[in-house]
Amino acid sequence: MERTGRPTLAVVGATGAVGTVMLEILSQHADIWGEIRLVASPRSAGRKLAVRGEQVEVSALAEEVFDGVDIAMFDVPDEVAAVWAPIAVAKGAVVVDNSGAFRMDPDVPLVVPEVNAHAARRRPRGIVATPNCTTLSMIVALGALHAEFGLRELVVSSYQAVSGAGRAGVDALRRQLSLVAGTDLGTRPGDVRRAVGDDTGPFPEPVALNVVPWAGSLREDGWSSEEMKVRDESRKILGLPKLPVAVTCVRVPVLTTHSLTVHARFEDEVTVEGAREILATAPGVVLFDNPAAGEFPTPADVTGTDPTWVGRVRRALDDPTALELFVCGDNLRKGSALNTTQIAESLAAETR
Amino acid sequence: MERTGRPTLAVVGATGAVGTVMLEILSQHADIWGEIRLVASPRSAGRKLAVRGEQVEVSALAEEVFDGVDIAMFDVPDEVAAVWAPIAVAKGAVVVDNSGAFRMDPDVPLVVPEVNAHAARRRPRGIVATPNCTTLSMIVALGALHAEFGLRELVVSSYQAVSGAGRAGVDALRRQLSLVAGTDLGTRPGDVRRAVGDDTGPFPEPVALNVVPWAGSLREDGWSSEEMKVRDESRKILGLPKLPVAVTCVRVPVLTTHSLTVHARFEDEVTVEGAREILATAPGVVLFDNPAAGEFPTPADVTGTDPTWVGRVRRALDDPTALELFVCGDNLRKGSALNTTQIAESLAAETR
Ligand SMILES: NC(=O)c1ccc[n+]([C@@H]2O[C@H](COP(=O)([O-])OP(=O)(O)OC[C@H]3O[C@@H](n4cnc5c(N)ncnc54)[C@H](OP(=O)(O)O)[C@@H]3O)[C@@H](O)[C@H]2O)c1
Ligand SMILES: NC(=O)c1ccc[n+]([C@@H]2O[C@H](COP(=O)([O-])OP(=O)(O)OC[C@H]3O[C@@H](n4cnc5c(N)ncnc54)[C@H](OP(=O)(O)O)[C@@H]3O)[C@@H](O)[C@H]2O)c1
Repeated sequence: MERTGRPTLAVVGATGAVGTVMLEILSQHADIWGEIRLVASPRSAGRKLAVRGEQVEVSALAEEVFDGVDIAMFDVPDEVAAVWAPIAVAKGAVVVDNSGAFRMDPDVPLVVPEVNAHAARRRPRGIVATPNCTTLSMIVALGALHAEFGLRELVVSSYQAVSGAGRAGVDALRRQLSLVAGTDLGTRPGDVRRAVGDDTGPFPEPVALNVVPWAGSLREDGWSSEEMKVRDESRKILGLPKLPVAVTCVRVPVLTTHSLTVHARFEDEVTVEGAREILATAPGVVLFDNPAAGEFPTPADVTGTDPTWVGRVRRALDDPTALELFVCGDNLRKGSALNTTQIAESLAAETR
Repeated sequence: MERTGRPTLAVVGATGAVGTVMLEILSQHADIWGEIRLVASPRSAGRKLAVRGEQVEVSALAEEVFDGVDIAMFDVPDEVAAVWAPIAVAKGAVVVDNSGAFRMDPDVPLVVPEVNAHAARRRPRGIVATPNCTTLSMIVALGALHAEFGLRELVVSSYQAVSGAGRAGVDALRRQLSLVAGTDLGTRPGDVRRAVGDDTGPFPEPVALNVVPWAGSLREDGWSSEEMKVRDESRKILGLPKLPVAVTCVRVPVLTTHSLTVHARFEDEVTVEGAREILATAPGVVLFDNPAAGEFPTPADVTGTDPTWVGRVRRALDDPTALELFVCGDNLRKGSALNTTQIAESLAAETR
């Protein structure tokens, strides 16, 4: 295949949970790239990974890996992105960053193409950020409803998959499930804790046969960092800096796909029919909502797909301006790798 | 032990998920009963079950089982309670019913002793109802906060355990977990569904490695019966017939203990300190809320205990009149068997 003249892409964090799905997506999408360079920590240097049907060797992160790179997608921990994204920019790349390092920087746009594609144009630091996966799992649907009805308030509860905590999260749930499965556990005090033992992986409590109302680190007044991200990032993406957002983030024993319940209040009265019409036609959204036929989204159906799935659409019984929704999105696709790729692809189109 | 002169108790549905815990609780509590008669379907007649350290034979449900019974606790499906509770009353018993058959009947009090014990006094039909387990998992904590601050609005999302659907629910999750555990499942489209197959038990979708936004049957405008119960029963118990309540009920792969996120708006400004003080001293409530020390309730810790556990107490960042809470309650204890027993015990004290 003739690839000369096309932009060079670096995937930094190619070996991680997000990076792995990134390579899948790059292999499925139209091939617009010249060289694709794979980068991870020195631990992974020399490993070979498949992308676009070819085996590509992983390089250890270093200044030289950005030589000649046009666009660099970063899927690494915050502290790694904080140091290395500016280096990539200094070497001439535009960075699309999946970490939390730059999202709230006023000079870094936070972009979800279906909602605020225009924001990517102004990027004084050379960095475009992509939101946290929990925010991303609902924001495409909410953006569409906001454009029509005007959002006034959000109350959100999450049901977050373990892969939101990366490979370590997936490994922890798999290990715990094999310890508890097939046993008579979970009905007597301490059962689950005894079976799982002290090794709860990246989570503060066992997650098998359990739900854990915590994600991220402790912020002021008892809020978790994940909850603050959902509030702050939603406001920034929607351009509603004062939107009231109440969030509780909860980890559940699901491998992939975040689910959220959303109570959304709008400026005026809304109808279910009006909301359904918008959701049925919004780009990137699937309306899957017919409980009489057993149709509502669940992670089992949504995993591996691109869109935001919306079901259980109801008008609040006691408030004609509010809607109730149940929303699912694959945290490794639209929640991270897909959104990043979409942005990178439109940046590539720009530079052509 | 000398038991003559004491009230006779019938446990109808003694073999079920709730009934089994009922027998445990009767064995743990102070023994105030004369005879305890165990009743279930003809399928279980002749089986022996342990209660108060004795083996007691199960009788098939029939008019005669209520001969001489003072108090009958019903832990059977709605349609069975609807027919048989009035028969027990006609035979002279006071009925404490755990099913949904009578909860919204204006002539049947719906009682949570910590919140509205007085309501049990007026019972024109001879029946006292105990709420749905989802309502019960939060209402003791909310009742205490309401008494102090005056509740104005609720937005609730549930994380409901499979034992809320009885033995069949527990069996379904155990079977599904043994099919999916230890495999590489749950990251590719259709993985979970293929592994679990068509036998999803009492749930409309696989519940292992999944969350299912549905509980109960379909009501008007897309609401589930479980969601309507949470709204209607909360209003009745709190004596707030117009309280706005928005609910989404979701099943999670947990065996026992329902969890809920609650966004509660009050009449005036609230403080976290004020709320914590109330929750720390309210009867039947445990405040377990210190994220810095990793303290928040999870089903793994709450299962097998009596109280309502409350954690993650925060004031809404954008509304000084609202609190966010994460609440857990063992659906088989306070959520059903314990509340029923508490009511039966206070009725027994009345008749002394
Ligand atoms: N998981 C999600 O749903 C999700 C969603 C949105 C955003 N994000 C964000 O995306 C980023 C990656 O998340 P993940 O879930 O994929 O994590 P992960 O599975 O733990 O993978 C981390 C990746 O970063 C690389 N890495 C770690 N330290 C490095 C270093 N010092 N130098 C170079 N590379 C290093 C790892 O390489 P090695 O394999 O060599 O260690 C690996 O490729 C994080 O910022 C996360 O917050 C994740
Ligand atoms: N599970 C909860 O968390 C929960 C919480 C609050 C309220 N409730 C309510 O409590 C009731 C029992 O629930 P569960 O979860 O214990 O259900 P379950 O595990 O399915 O048990 C059902 C019980 O009812 C008996 N039964 C069924 N059909 C009968 C009939 N025709 N005649 C006599 N007995 C019959 C069964 O006896 P056999 O064993 O002989 O079939 C068994 O003892 C239901 O109304 C439920 O809605 C449950």
